[in-house]
Amino acid sequence: MATVPLGRYLWERIHQVGINQIFGVPGDFNLTLLDHIYDVEGLEWVGNTNELNSAYAADGYARVRNGAGCTVTTHGVGELSALNGVAGAMTEQVKVIHVVGQTSRVMQEKHMMIHHSIGNNPDHQIFNNASRNFRVAAAEIQTEVGAGEEIDRTLRECFVQSKPVYIFVPIDLVDKPIPAEPLKTPLNLEPDFDAKAVEEAAKATLEALYTAKNPSIFVDCLVERHNAVAEIKQVVDKLQLPIYTSNMGKGIIDEDHPNYVGLYNGIPSGAGVQAAAEACDFTLVIGSLPADTNSGGFTRVIPANKSVNIDPDQVVVKGEKTYTIAPIKKVLAKLAELIESDRIPKVAVPKLPERPVEDDADSKLITQSWIWHRIASFLQANDVIFGETGTAAFGLPDATFPAGTQWITQTYYGSIGYATPAAFGTDVGLADLAKTTSHPRGRTVLVTGDGSLMLTVQEVGNMIKQNAAPIIFIINNAGYTIERVIHGAKQSYNDIVPFNYSFMLQFFNMPADQAKECFHRAENKAELEEILKLDRVVKPKNVQIVEVMMDMMDVPWRLSTGVAMRGPEAVKEMKEAGFKVRELNNPAANGFWN
Amino acid sequence: MATVPLGRYLWERIHQVGINQIFGVPGDFNLTLLDHIYDVEGLEWVGNTNELNSAYAADGYARVRNGAGCTVTTHGVGELSALNGVAGAMTEQVKVIHVVGQTSRVMQEKHMMIHHSIGNNPDHQIFNNASRNFRVAAAEIQTEVGAGEEIDRTLRECFVQSKPVYIFVPIDLVDKPIPAEPLKTPLNLEPDFDAKAVEEAAKATLEALYTAKNPSIFVDCLVERHNAVAEIKQVVDKLQLPIYTSNMGKGIIDEDHPNYVGLYNGIPSGAGVQAAAEACDFTLVIGSLPADTNSGGFTRVIPANKSVNIDPDQVVVKGEKTYTIAPIKKVLAKLAELIESDRIPKVAVPKLPERPVEDDADSKLITQSWIWHRIASFLQANDVIFGETGTAAFGLPDATFPAGTQWITQTYYGSIGYATPAAFGTDVGLADLAKTTSHPRGRTVLVTGDGSLMLTVQEVGNMIKQNAAPIIFIINNAGYTIERVIHGAKQSYNDIVPFNYSFMLQFFNMPADQAKECFHRAENKAELEEILKLDRVVKPKNVQIVEVMMDMMDVPWRLSTGVAMRGPEAVKEMKEAGFKVRELNNPAANGFWN
Repeated sequence: MATVPLGRYLWERIHQVGINQIFGVPGDFNLTLLDHIYDVEGLEWVGNTNELNSAYAADGYARVRNGAGCTVTTHGVGELSALNGVAGAMTEQVKVIHVVGQTSRVMQEKHMMIHHSIGNNPDHQIFNNASRNFRVAAAEIQTEVGAGEEIDRTLRECFVQSKPVYIFVPIDLVDKPIPAEPLKTPLNLEPDFDAKAVEEAAKATLEALYTAKNPSIFVDCLVERHNAVAEIKQVVDKLQLPIYTSNMGKGIIDEDHPNYVGLYNGIPSGAGVQAAAEACDFTLVIGSLPADTNSGGFTRVIPANKSVNIDPDQVVVKGEKTYTIAPIKKVLAKLAELIESDRIPKVAVPKLPERPVEDDADSKLITQSWIWHRIASFLQANDVIFGETGTAAFGLPDATFPAGTQWITQTYYGSIGYATPAAFGTDVGLADLAKTTSHPRGRTVLVTGDGSLMLTVQEVGNMIKQNAAPIIFIINNAGYTIERVIHGAKQSYNDIVPFNYSFMLQFFNMPADQAKECFHRAENKAELEEILKLDRVVKPKNVQIVEVMMDMMDVPWRLSTGVAMRGPEAVKEMKEAGFKVRELNNPAANGFWN
Repeated sequence: MATVPLGRYLWERIHQVGINQIFGVPGDFNLTLLDHIYDVEGLEWVGNTNELNSAYAADGYARVRNGAGCTVTTHGVGELSALNGVAGAMTEQVKVIHVVGQTSRVMQEKHMMIHHSIGNNPDHQIFNNASRNFRVAAAEIQTEVGAGEEIDRTLRECFVQSKPVYIFVPIDLVDKPIPAEPLKTPLNLEPDFDAKAVEEAAKATLEALYTAKNPSIFVDCLVERHNAVAEIKQVVDKLQLPIYTSNMGKGIIDEDHPNYVGLYNGIPSGAGVQAAAEACDFTLVIGSLPADTNSGGFTRVIPANKSVNIDPDQVVVKGEKTYTIAPIKKVLAKLAELIESDRIPKVAVPKLPERPVEDDADSKLITQSWIWHRIASFLQANDVIFGETGTAAFGLPDATFPAGTQWITQTYYGSIGYATPAAFGTDVGLADLAKTTSHPRGRTVLVTGDGSLMLTVQEVGNMIKQNAAPIIFIINNAGYTIERVIHGAKQSYNDIVPFNYSFMLQFFNMPADQAKECFHRAENKAELEEILKLDRVVKPKNVQIVEVMMDMMDVPWRLSTGVAMRGPEAVKEMKEAGFKVRELNNPAANGFWN
């Protein structure tokens, strides 16, 4: 074939870059575009219960595939509804492709008052304009001439920058023929690099390491986002230096690695971690994302002159010299190649004090100090574990995950509601990987609070429809506990709409007998233990719900510590409300909050 | 008191302009701002299940109160999630106030990587920038100096333009003292007007009317949005001329008014309406919003030289002379004052042919040709009836509503998912009106499809929590029938996630015995008749669900006619898929679609 319809071209390319399932919601201006999905062998329409959920699902799908996810929406209404999910992918550096079916060019040119527009002389591009700061590239297609190249350029940017892109297709262009020839050549998705800069950066990094006395490695999430996990594993194995990570970087290096120490978050670090990390005279910082929630409120301070920072696209040596056009994946590969093991200082892995025994360790009820370790011990290799923003995101970092698990949180963007649709996307992605590759079928384990689940709960229905099989732990603590500890513990705004989860699966159309088998509720530790032994929970064939009843005023120590760092007023308020607050390691908190 | 905290000032003003309930979702950056709601007597926090729903709820609240609605969200994540709901209010000219609790000024100035931000040197205002095209004013507060004036100016613009506004409050400014004195003077919410222009416009309008032979009146939705319903009623009573309206203007003039003819939508008008309307030699066009979906796909053509257009802020006489600074409410009041009844031509109300008997009139099953009339006959004065985008929005216009009902659709913006949270906002607004004024407690009647409901269904849980009492008809036709008739009738993208509504109320925490009483399912007309007789449905004390089973491929004639107007290809596709298509009144359709 010399030509293909533009719509077909788009989906062929999207399939070529590793996407087998498409998320989104149909609408007047994307229906004919969606038709072409069915023409691409190996590509399937999945769909979602609303557009925000579809963006989250595409994000979750992307994260477990070292690749991209795709959502399709319709002009204006759908496009804007998805925006917050796309913005989250921008913050978290996830490859989300947002395809928008637009009004026709004539409608746009004549400023026609087509439904979904605004005003008497509508500019149809105001929706497009609203997302400009939440994407790194866009194919704003307005003619079939060069449209294929625009699509190719945009998809490449998605991968190179590991951030969201948009592709806009006016409805009248969907079936226009464009050259098919380019489809024969796969896209180059690797960032450009300067071989000389990469080599010099690697050498300068190693010189800095060789001359240190007590160096360490800090591995953060951007290593994973920029697809350099295999390379970092080689590097740390060769360096054999103490390894620290962050809330978001957790799990990239297996936590049973002999050199692994723990999460270094400045003040809110586990016992002994901060002192050990700060005793180092040099740190190799790799893929850092130093947001407040990923840096102990900016209290993880690694001085520039005592570190090399390997960022996604550059290397900064001791704050003095910057090597650009040096992508992280290439730099780490070169490092692994050049390391001279005998020149690396020998550094013992710091021995940390035992974890303190919590006051409530003997409780028969399910406590924050117990639950996260228990869920972690339920995990297996190849599992993907989600900690939704809330107590899960602050609690799970305390637990040690088995090797080969993937940890997903939206710690920097922190949009509650994210994790449920994202977990759907992940499970679709994992099922497909097991079907189309040799990758074993990992389980999706979602831990969400009742507050967050409420925002996007309908996607549980889609899980059932699509035969997804996540295990969903719902922390039922009667509202927004994460907000209660921050402020307004007893204010009505922190209450939520209570759901009776025992009816959720049937509402979402699971047959009654099956729903009975798939819903579980634990009032105490003993009940949870029994649930976690069930074969259908351990090896789920369909959605498993585990409702975990917890105290409204119980919070993970990392969360209360983070709040305490806001200053004495915050400590006073927490204590008066009845929250437990640990004494700060360093009472002179940074107090950046106010 | 000489000063009040800025947060308190904001809520006092919002209460003063007629708002007694606040919608929204709490978040880190609005908690202390929300505290001040509780300080204002007569103002209460209601909250929602997510931010998009909160914007829709504020919209529904505004529409039934001749006033404004308010939603509060948190910086970034909440703010963007609500955006599509605000954009809908912009399109539909509804007074929505979006209050955003922002990061502190120091965080903003220092470009700190606070959670919800984007990038390594984040601009915290990118979220604010994203909504610039979806609002008519904003208080971008960055200092307490002049903050009260900014709030006042912004609230005034919301009312004057009847469109959304934003108020941004950095968290560190919430408790700053500002002068309290201005609160003693209520805001002037009326648009500026030029008395001379208003009088001249009214006189020119009347001259045009007096010299016509066969004039008529066309009343559209912007009359209501710009708070001129009382004035238009006076005008039509004095003029005694035939009255036409549109899909969106339906119900502003009681449909039992002796001069009322019907919905004039060009080609897809009821039998005889188009001919009658187009036989007029002059039309007084009031508050027109000529979007495709509100004008029969632009086939309602009222020539400029044969009309006077009274728009929200100007009057255009016969396409020749424009009077500005002449707000609709003032112009209509002046018209009513100046009309000389004996100079108005006497025009008989056109006699329309009988409604054609439908092929499926004898069906025992529930058909599109029957259901809308049946629901209409269930209505009472003071009810508010929602037709969600979908078959309801195209079907209900066919039915005649009792006098004193209010009809709400989002016909121009057309964002599916709107109606359920909006109906919640409406019911909160109606309950409050009944409590605080002499306005009788009207019922909220929501008619939604299963497809639309899916997007925002969790707000039904909030209805239960807040003791709202809407009657919700769910048209269960197994998916997006409105999209099936447009394209892809049998494509999987038009399927939805099926819900089992019999479990919905219990899932949303209604007690089992009550839920059993409040859920109803009608497989056929006879069953629906029985349900509509039930006292608890007729006089609801809590949420009543009526699931109405309908055929997937049955559509209202206005919808299939609208699609047919796209041209012969569209007709062919509909017929092949099995849809009934009426012959077009005028087969030379305008074909603007492609």
